[in-house]
Amino acid sequence: MTKKNAFYAQSGGVTAVINASACGVIETARQHKDKIGNVYAGRNGIIGALTEDLIDTGKESAANIAALRHTPGGAFGSCRYKLKGIEENRAQYERLIEVFKAHDIGYFFYNGGGDSQDTAHKVSQIGAELGYPITCVGIPKTVDNDLPITDNCPGFGSVAKYVAVSTREAAYDVASMAKTSTKIFVMEVMGRHAGWIAAAAGLAQEQEGDAPHIILFPEVAFDQAKFLKQVDKAVKKYDYCVIVVSEGVRDKDGKFLSDSGIKDAFGHAQLGGVAPMLANLIKHELGHKFHWAVADYLQRSARHIAAKTDVEQAYALGKAAVELALKGKNAVMPTIVRKSNKPYRWTIGEAKLADVANVEKMMPKNFISRNGFEITDACREYLAPLIKGEDYPPYKNGLPQYARMKNVAVAKKLKARFKI
Amino acid sequence: MTKKNAFYAQSGGVTAVINASACGVIETARQHKDKIGNVYAGRNGIIGALTEDLIDTGKESAANIAALRHTPGGAFGSCRYKLKGIEENRAQYERLIEVFKAHDIGYFFYNGGGDSQDTAHKVSQIGAELGYPITCVGIPKTVDNDLPITDNCPGFGSVAKYVAVSTREAAYDVASMAKTSTKIFVMEVMGRHAGWIAAAAGLAQEQEGDAPHIILFPEVAFDQAKFLKQVDKAVKKYDYCVIVVSEGVRDKDGKFLSDSGIKDAFGHAQLGGVAPMLANLIKHELGHKFHWAVADYLQRSARHIAAKTDVEQAYALGKAAVELALKGKNAVMPTIVRKSNKPYRWTIGEAKLADVANVEKMMPKNFISRNGFEITDACREYLAPLIKGEDYPPYKNGLPQYARMKNVAVAKKLKARFKI
Repeated sequence: MTKKNAFYAQSGGVTAVINASACGVIETARQHKDKIGNVYAGRNGIIGALTEDLIDTGKESAANIAALRHTPGGAFGSCRYKLKGIEENRAQYERLIEVFKAHDIGYFFYNGGGDSQDTAHKVSQIGAELGYPITCVGIPKTVDNDLPITDNCPGFGSVAKYVAVSTREAAYDVASMAKTSTKIFVMEVMGRHAGWIAAAAGLAQEQEGDAPHIILFPEVAFDQAKFLKQVDKAVKKYDYCVIVVSEGVRDKDGKFLSDSGIKDAFGHAQLGGVAPMLANLIKHELGHKFHWAVADYLQRSARHIAAKTDVEQAYALGKAAVELALKGKNAVMPTIVRKSNKPYRWTIGEAKLADVANVEKMMPKNFISRNGFEITDACREYLAPLIKGEDYPPYKNGLPQYARMKNVAVAKKLKARFKI
Repeated sequence: MTKKNAFYAQSGGVTAVINASACGVIETARQHKDKIGNVYAGRNGIIGALTEDLIDTGKESAANIAALRHTPGGAFGSCRYKLKGIEENRAQYERLIEVFKAHDIGYFFYNGGGDSQDTAHKVSQIGAELGYPITCVGIPKTVDNDLPITDNCPGFGSVAKYVAVSTREAAYDVASMAKTSTKIFVMEVMGRHAGWIAAAAGLAQEQEGDAPHIILFPEVAFDQAKFLKQVDKAVKKYDYCVIVVSEGVRDKDGKFLSDSGIKDAFGHAQLGGVAPMLANLIKHELGHKFHWAVADYLQRSARHIAAKTDVEQAYALGKAAVELALKGKNAVMPTIVRKSNKPYRWTIGEAKLADVANVEKMMPKNFISRNGFEITDACREYLAPLIKGEDYPPYKNGLPQYARMKNVAVAKKLKARFKI
């Protein structure tokens, strides 16, 4: 096996633990200097490869690479840039191979969701076709938890923990205020297609009466009358009602509730914000005082409350990706395999990229209660281990100390520039 | 000194550490059983005293009382219920004294903001007047940090830490996405009258270029053109812009920006949400993709990321309140006195309720930069110690374990009922 350089890139929305995967990749590669030369990272993801804008991770100290394990966001930059099909834009793929060739890159590690696994798969095909075979290994990442085959996706567990903790904390607040003030709290969470993140709020409930009292899933068409009845029931029984709503909740015609078609004070279309809309609806129909929150990026960047399980799995998948590549495995993605729930045990498995690409894993039907507002015991059993454990970052002066990368560019070798 | 019972109540918006003060009161009272009999808590604050709905904290185990130190919200319930002036509604005050007399209450501890300190002051006056002298001690609490005399207010430090940490984390996320996606992140924080909480976001900035790039204070009239220019400058320089906006920001006519006068999809007035409004403005004027968050209750209930300094001070003030009462001090409030910044040292002082009541402490002018978008070094020096230290709650199954109170009612002794 001749020594080759490796290319690593982050793709799509970043998470609290995608850098833990990067850490796993780079630290493991550094342990195999006989087989892997430099690890080059794409600046802003795959765009860095297309524009030959590579970062030399060898210029980062061991301490800085280690700090990636506790640093949120994407340390080398990510992008939302989906490569087209090979038929539509062969030039993009040829350019990738050209850049890899110029920098003697023999390994391609792509850290992302479904689209990215598809890209990694295509790169492996075109490489072989163009006579420059390259070992392509995907590394799963997505807060949406929608990749197939793997039991769960790194990034999701930490969002799940954030949402469950925040729901519990806010509920303690609302419960205190309910007698004379706020009775309704609505928290909006991510998840445009699937209700995984909203479902995680259900973990905050340990006893009858605990929040959340209502979860609104994208999988369940919003029924205004039924919803208001449920709110009313909760307020009558517990004196307050905590609602967790997925940003992706839709009406019976499939239209996003947040797509209100209204204009704001500046006369611009008002985007997003299903939480304030529901809160106002309740105020108008039932008369209760409300508060609402939209966690948005806070939920997926909250490294300070990341789940230990999630951090460990993210790191392990980065490490496994390098090990698979060194074994000569191509067009694969390491996965999480659940061995048992009590005690929770998991191990690393392996999936073919061809089987992962462009397949979305939805929430099983039996994870949502019959009334459509709660999670089932089966769901709870699945979710519970994923938020386990705390993995606090180091603090200085009261603030978490996250890695500051140098991100030194590798000298360009190609004359041709590539336009994105 | 004859033995008397004590009454404790929580007032106004609750915080991540108001229960730490309750813990300080109850644990200290329990150490002086020769002078203080039972500690009765008002169910839902002062309403519990008016309606003779008292909670016997003696029924709670020592472990449960200790757990209050790490439990957010108001364990006995709080209320937004301002007692009227004595002239307007003498009956309310007479009722309080009647209830205190019936339950042999000689100490009144009132844990709240400016209004509550005013109430405590009045109760002490009317008690003496009615021939039932009662020792009244206020305990400061408010995330708004607007009480006079005390250097800072318990509850604020933890919100400040939450806001600074969240700003830093979200900025790591946005910076990763800026090349091809989100360039703008707007986070809305509490503070209707003063910019203390928004200012705390400034602590996230350690180096030139760090977020937040813009802070909008209620103290500075919003100037749309100047604001957009500043956003544009940040995006050109750093490729992204993180904005932290106080919910209380106003235009030059003093009108809240969030008071939009618009209707939502249900035809109801759209309340709140200055963050989405600003994000949409930027999109419309500068064309950048955005994300926004409204932290709302999450920020003030986030006990999981409370500042150690804040927890310690909240507890110490509860303890000091009991000690002041035992020394026979009446109509006073313990305060935080800052002794030095480096190293940060503080001690407990004492203020007269007459001097505290109804005085609002605003942010000093020299805490806001000349351009109106940043905090100054003086502000940083003041704020920095308040977010210091972590004080994690215990976890089980990945979730913080907060106290569950029994809140057993004390048998009523009065025949007359009081209507709220």
